[in-house]
Amino acid sequence: MPMKKFINAPENLTAELLEGFALAYSRKIVLQGKTVLRAVPKSPDKVALVTLGGAGHEPALSGFVGPGMLDASVVGDIFAAPGAPAVLAALQATRREAGTLLVILNHAGDVMSGNMAFEMATQQGVKVEKVLTHEDISAGKDAPLENRRGLVGCIPLYKIAGAAAEAGKSLPEIVAIVERFNENLRTLAVALSPATHPASGGVIGQIADDEMEVGMGQHGEGGGGVMKLASADETARIMLDKLLDTIAVQAGDQLLVVINGSGATTLMEQYLVLRAVKKLLDARGLVMARSLVGEFLTVQEMGGFQMCIAKLDDELIELFDAPCDTPSLTVK
Amino acid sequence: MPMKKFINAPENLTAELLEGFALAYSRKIVLQGKTVLRAVPKSPDKVALVTLGGAGHEPALSGFVGPGMLDASVVGDIFAAPGAPAVLAALQATRREAGTLLVILNHAGDVMSGNMAFEMATQQGVKVEKVLTHEDISAGKDAPLENRRGLVGCIPLYKIAGAAAEAGKSLPEIVAIVERFNENLRTLAVALSPATHPASGGVIGQIADDEMEVGMGQHGEGGGGVMKLASADETARIMLDKLLDTIAVQAGDQLLVVINGSGATTLMEQYLVLRAVKKLLDARGLVMARSLVGEFLTVQEMGGFQMCIAKLDDELIELFDAPCDTPSLTVK
Repeated sequence: MPMKKFINAPENLTAELLEGFALAYSRKIVLQGKTVLRAVPKSPDKVALVTLGGAGHEPALSGFVGPGMLDASVVGDIFAAPGAPAVLAALQATRREAGTLLVILNHAGDVMSGNMAFEMATQQGVKVEKVLTHEDISAGKDAPLENRRGLVGCIPLYKIAGAAAEAGKSLPEIVAIVERFNENLRTLAVALSPATHPASGGVIGQIADDEMEVGMGQHGEGGGGVMKLASADETARIMLDKLLDTIAVQAGDQLLVVINGSGATTLMEQYLVLRAVKKLLDARGLVMARSLVGEFLTVQEMGGFQMCIAKLDDELIELFDAPCDTPSLTVK
Repeated sequence: MPMKKFINAPENLTAELLEGFALAYSRKIVLQGKTVLRAVPKSPDKVALVTLGGAGHEPALSGFVGPGMLDASVVGDIFAAPGAPAVLAALQATRREAGTLLVILNHAGDVMSGNMAFEMATQQGVKVEKVLTHEDISAGKDAPLENRRGLVGCIPLYKIAGAAAEAGKSLPEIVAIVERFNENLRTLAVALSPATHPASGGVIGQIADDEMEVGMGQHGEGGGGVMKLASADETARIMLDKLLDTIAVQAGDQLLVVINGSGATTLMEQYLVLRAVKKLLDARGLVMARSLVGEFLTVQEMGGFQMCIAKLDDELIELFDAPCDTPSLTVK
């Protein structure tokens, strides 16, 4: 069976998709090689925000470059980390006295490139701090760091860090805010149907016709939680129970809920899941203070979604609500 | 094979998805039965904009209710038109001296309910005009009206009409602007892989493993254009040639291009298609003045996309660029 995707030569895929992305948002972003930068750079007295990751997860990560979120997104090939030199170049391109925060999602290649670029930039006198997102709970709450991947939680983290930067907060202040958010951020994925790697043609995440898999990672690596297909309400309960079991919450706490479609799962289904989560939180006396629903970080046409929760406080809510203007998220 | 979707009881699907939608956007929209209204109604001295259509196409149509776009979206069950009484109620709810524009997509049920509600509202003294979108070219350029369906072109039309209304233009002025846009609006769909009706479980649009179908409608009705699967560049060329063959354009003309993912087709692929369209337009001396890329009007998890083009002039560009703030499209 041929791969059913609208592509051209697989070796040009990343370059071509970035070219199309830049055409679609020519007034918002510019391309420098495979790095996406704001069309109008942020004032140099404010902290810059840089991230990195493979292509194939559109709109992530580059869809979130713009005022109020990222200053630069360094793009790798499909599902592959960019090299350290490209990350270093982005840290140089956004260099400023206020400093730069480098956000790394916990995947081996991204961590290697991110850390290497961080070391080189520091040696070159660039003022930079880094933060690692590692909110996946599929391997259990006491799992070693390498099994706690960075999933969709990076998106609200960019939002909060970006708002703090726009507000003129210092690099140490922003690191403190981001780490406070990051500490109480948890994500769990569920997969229903597989995706096809658009360059290799390989199938990612085979799942039986009557089953779903709770714990699927960013690239469908699988977390072992194969179970019978359940309703929206029941799936939401299974996942929320697992998430809340890893975080200290008490009645009255304010939560952010993100429902992130993986690809083929409809917005319709995502709304049903959000509705179910709201009822479950209500029953526990927890407050769904804010939510995000839609496709933020996809895995090609995989069926399924990621459920992400985070504890919010008044300052985090204010930052989450602040304006931003990026290709894939605009808040007035 | 069981339906692989996260739903609950099929008979509650529309009510539950609207409930989840209203929770996700509680500060932007409110529900009145199955009608979605702006949370903060538009000033009564400005023309209101009302539309109608079945659920199951999320984010359309209700994702575009808000300042700068729609005032009300009357929602039917999955892929089914709402009844005339609900449309009439929305026309009454948004009633104002400035008048209301009712936008109807050309599908038999929507036209029947829309026209009936229009007649009843007029008899009751409501000031209302209507416009029909019918931009699908899959049945050929001389096809009878019933074969020229309303597809994703409604989204930029709402944007332009909504901006004209916010600018304080009169109902006759808005009708004239919208009809000028509508006259030069064309859409063609291509499908790669089928979807499942989420309430009935029926499969929509069977397509062979090595084929695609150009001309698929809103619900995968099919247009007869079965052909071998082609690359992004070749598919773009086939579709754009057909679209440009139905519209009078000359070098220097400014066009809007919309690439609308049907469901499973990735944003990555949509960017490749936009890139191809830009090159093809450049070669003809035509200007891609504006574009929209993403999932605006979906058909569940169907693989494929709609390509929509429209002629723009300076006034239409200004209206297209004007601010809006809806759940699924925000322009600053």
